[in-house]
Amino acid sequence: MPRLRLALAQTNPVVGDFARNAAGIVDAVRTARARGADLVATGEMAISGYPIEDLASRPSFLRTARAAVERLARTLDDEGLGDVAVVVGHPDGPFAPRPVDVSTAPTAIAKNCASVLQHGRVVATTAKHHLPNYSVFDEYRVFIPGDDLLVARIADVDVAVVICEDLWRDGGPVARVLGADAGLLLVVNASPWVADKDEVRLPLVTRRATESDTVVAYVNIVGGQDDLVFDGDSVVVDETGRVVARAPQFREHLLLVDVDPAPATGPVVTEHVQRVSLDTPNTTPGELAGRPPLPRDVAELPDDRQAIWDALVLGTRDYVRKNGFRSVVLGLSGGIDSAVCAAIAVDAIGAEHVFGVSMPSRWSSTHSRSDADDVAARLGLQYRTEPIADLVAPFDAQLGLTGLAAENIQARVRALILMGLSNLDGHLVLTTGNKTELAVGYSTIYGDSVGGFAPIKDVPKTIVWALARWRNAAAASRGETEPIPENSISKPPSAELREGQEDQDSLPPYEVLDAILEQYVTRAQGAADIVAMGFDAATVAEVTRLVDRSEWKRRQGAIGPKTSGMAFGRDRRLPITYRPSPTIDG
Amino acid sequence: MPRLRLALAQTNPVVGDFARNAAGIVDAVRTARARGADLVATGEMAISGYPIEDLASRPSFLRTARAAVERLARTLDDEGLGDVAVVVGHPDGPFAPRPVDVSTAPTAIAKNCASVLQHGRVVATTAKHHLPNYSVFDEYRVFIPGDDLLVARIADVDVAVVICEDLWRDGGPVARVLGADAGLLLVVNASPWVADKDEVRLPLVTRRATESDTVVAYVNIVGGQDDLVFDGDSVVVDETGRVVARAPQFREHLLLVDVDPAPATGPVVTEHVQRVSLDTPNTTPGELAGRPPLPRDVAELPDDRQAIWDALVLGTRDYVRKNGFRSVVLGLSGGIDSAVCAAIAVDAIGAEHVFGVSMPSRWSSTHSRSDADDVAARLGLQYRTEPIADLVAPFDAQLGLTGLAAENIQARVRALILMGLSNLDGHLVLTTGNKTELAVGYSTIYGDSVGGFAPIKDVPKTIVWALARWRNAAAASRGETEPIPENSISKPPSAELREGQEDQDSLPPYEVLDAILEQYVTRAQGAADIVAMGFDAATVAEVTRLVDRSEWKRRQGAIGPKTSGMAFGRDRRLPITYRPSPTIDG
Repeated sequence: MPRLRLALAQTNPVVGDFARNAAGIVDAVRTARARGADLVATGEMAISGYPIEDLASRPSFLRTARAAVERLARTLDDEGLGDVAVVVGHPDGPFAPRPVDVSTAPTAIAKNCASVLQHGRVVATTAKHHLPNYSVFDEYRVFIPGDDLLVARIADVDVAVVICEDLWRDGGPVARVLGADAGLLLVVNASPWVADKDEVRLPLVTRRATESDTVVAYVNIVGGQDDLVFDGDSVVVDETGRVVARAPQFREHLLLVDVDPAPATGPVVTEHVQRVSLDTPNTTPGELAGRPPLPRDVAELPDDRQAIWDALVLGTRDYVRKNGFRSVVLGLSGGIDSAVCAAIAVDAIGAEHVFGVSMPSRWSSTHSRSDADDVAARLGLQYRTEPIADLVAPFDAQLGLTGLAAENIQARVRALILMGLSNLDGHLVLTTGNKTELAVGYSTIYGDSVGGFAPIKDVPKTIVWALARWRNAAAASRGETEPIPENSISKPPSAELREGQEDQDSLPPYEVLDAILEQYVTRAQGAADIVAMGFDAATVAEVTRLVDRSEWKRRQGAIGPKTSGMAFGRDRRLPITYRPSPTIDG
Repeated sequence: MPRLRLALAQTNPVVGDFARNAAGIVDAVRTARARGADLVATGEMAISGYPIEDLASRPSFLRTARAAVERLARTLDDEGLGDVAVVVGHPDGPFAPRPVDVSTAPTAIAKNCASVLQHGRVVATTAKHHLPNYSVFDEYRVFIPGDDLLVARIADVDVAVVICEDLWRDGGPVARVLGADAGLLLVVNASPWVADKDEVRLPLVTRRATESDTVVAYVNIVGGQDDLVFDGDSVVVDETGRVVARAPQFREHLLLVDVDPAPATGPVVTEHVQRVSLDTPNTTPGELAGRPPLPRDVAELPDDRQAIWDALVLGTRDYVRKNGFRSVVLGLSGGIDSAVCAAIAVDAIGAEHVFGVSMPSRWSSTHSRSDADDVAARLGLQYRTEPIADLVAPFDAQLGLTGLAAENIQARVRALILMGLSNLDGHLVLTTGNKTELAVGYSTIYGDSVGGFAPIKDVPKTIVWALARWRNAAAASRGETEPIPENSISKPPSAELREGQEDQDSLPPYEVLDAILEQYVTRAQGAADIVAMGFDAATVAEVTRLVDRSEWKRRQGAIGPKTSGMAFGRDRRLPITYRPSPTIDG
């Protein structure tokens, strides 16, 4: 007979919208209670959204967050849900600032917390101990670390509560779980997705379960927040390491499971452990006494290509919706990048809200125009053609533009068309550049780079092709029209800004280029190291030079969903002003 | 009889250019030795430039840096300068990474170091203990903290060496100086300038001197690096707190001074203290034995307005030069912002390298055109007029642009002109927006915001006016032509994108606006707090709404020199996707 019915609320919060986020939690608790749950847990910062960045340094934001948590406790009780124990993630503060220098700069005055609510009250609060300050995370900047482990007793089980990064580090709270008599380790997370993250996250959860002989319940938020996509993938693993429940990725879900952790026997470690006792709703008589059995709820993960696609779709949808847009506009060149972005946008918000514009020039090939028409027809999106010749010619004539200037003006005139349509009709402009282009600066700033969101900015060109083929195959397998024209996939890529131009005139083959970029950008290897791996020295020198000198363009680029371990943006912070030295003394 | 002749080398490094930076240090040591110095010190990271950001996580960069320091030691010796003790700032590594999660993200593998060089060798190395991770600093992200205090004995004086932030914190190395028998505290810095920073920096140096009864020598780098301007202002304070030497702000300088610290008597504290003994060049016979006396070298600081101006000029000049540009181009509207930016550019790189473009539209007033002509004439810059009517009309006609779309297209056509001229002639484009505009989004993205550098992006509108008046007065006092037309200063500001438009139609008076922004942006106060200070509630609501919704524009904006305690950019990291809540429960 399982001891505890647990519900993990995998919600999709909006940063700052406490009322909406709290309402979603109330809904989850209502459903969970109706299904007999004793304990409901949300992800990290589920009431505020995550990451809140420097909002954590605003006293007014923190006061609002604290009030929102207290109000949530009261609301749950007012709605007859107060007997359920609810663990909710939230920022807390303001606390006395950690001393820094005399600057007026943001200062850590907040903690990254999880609180237990019951019977209308905040029963206990714990704070994240390990503050990630690498990759996209700046938590050491804005948070003060916690120093205790919260253990809440419910249904005779000691439930230890830790937050996200605390699970990943061997020291700190997780170490105390071993000695704290906990039967259940509840981990409250806001863990952004990157490709293959499940290959490390689940093994970690499993290892923690077996090494501490506890059931581990891992609850994550879901949804897009600027450049991050949270995938959910909340999971419960028993003390033998077996997955007993798993939520789907990339959508909201309420995951219910009965668990049977070892009952509390008495603590071995008491230092830095905060203990509270909770009522157990289902040990008292009442409507929940005869609990219906739960169906097994263990989601299958999508394959690698689908996971990327789903992440891009969710990231795009949430950027559009959470920022109050209803529609997007993008240029359709007939090439692979814009076709893939259009398909993502249609999957995200529906073809009726996606506006494609073909903007042919004197250099545009017949196939470009027909491929753009074909994409629009296959996706059924809103479509118009705006030739640019009559808009470009006056610039060429007045300014005497030649060479690169004459090439770029075409891309920039297209930008003005898209921004004009955006201003007229309120569309969000999507920019369609891929990671490879962004890396080497193979784009026109204030031209094809304009837009508020860049769906494939963290997808290398070689993966863009693979995604196109995957998406077509998925459509075919469902008997649907393949969204990407075969010709857009198979033809040689070209910016078509001059006669007969092809990308491969200026760049190495994309397979080579992406392999070098993987080393230089993602793995931070130096040029000499990359040459030592067997790449052509002149090619490596040229590629690294292009990457370095494009930093200023990237800095002014739109955000887009992170899919890799090293996305351009806050994941990779490099100076613009930088003169790389040849290696000194080898 | 002073015991020690000290030289502080206030150099202007370029990030990554080890050979150039080292050559500058060799030059400084050569001059210092010729003038009889025993000990020469550079600023923090003087050999690599600062900040190096995630370059600190590249093993190849660190290997190059280590080789550069070793080569510098050998070069000094080879050039007959090896008897002088040289303290140089540099990154060091790679070290074993500080454990983080499984991401491939940058990981701290470096230390922020200072080494003592003598006789061709690296005699000792110490690492920065306190790693700033607030404001513009991300040092906890990329560095591993040091854990010892270096004490180098020279001329019978114990010289304690600490690095920048270590001076600001009461614990750590500075606390050990008290017990370490040091007569001289040498602080190696890369301390960026902000307005009024001297009002806290010098008192801190003075307090350290008196509280530890040591001479304090504070050496800072100088120069622009992306959005930061290092002002130098290297200073030496004796144990009574008296300033005995001070370098000028905003330029390179070699500061020599004779000091007479208490001789070493023997350490009280030995734990976490690394001790080395150095030769003293001037206690041995030789060319330096009969040292000429030094003139007093105590620079006066510029007044507040001049300090801002000098910082903007240096930041602009160094961005241009360090990035390999020879010239800049900017639009001249006849308004105050573009006039001030043009004057900064001329002061930075000379009128012959500054290209101004007047781009009148059908809405441009007669005074706009004549004021633009007047600015160009007063500054003597390169000037042309490119009317936009014939470029705008085809867009209006083809797309049926009206309202905001028709206003924005004008600003965007101007952007295409400037970018076209940049592509043709290799100019860097300067964008002329001020901090107030940037805060409330009162600009056209991909229009007047285009450019690689934004000289006044951290200068509020009210200060732009003050700077213009100051610069004119400075010119008048030297008998020069006042660079800014009086009419550009005194007329009501207007974007002139429609008939009769004035800024104050859409915005509160700039005095009120800047006062609200000071609270909301710089001091991170909430709207309710600002209303409680006495500002009009509707105005506060509107201003904070405008600031919040302009985040995506700011994120795509050019960098420019930080002048305040809270500049837009990495100083203030906020989500784009953010729905501010009304305060809950008050």
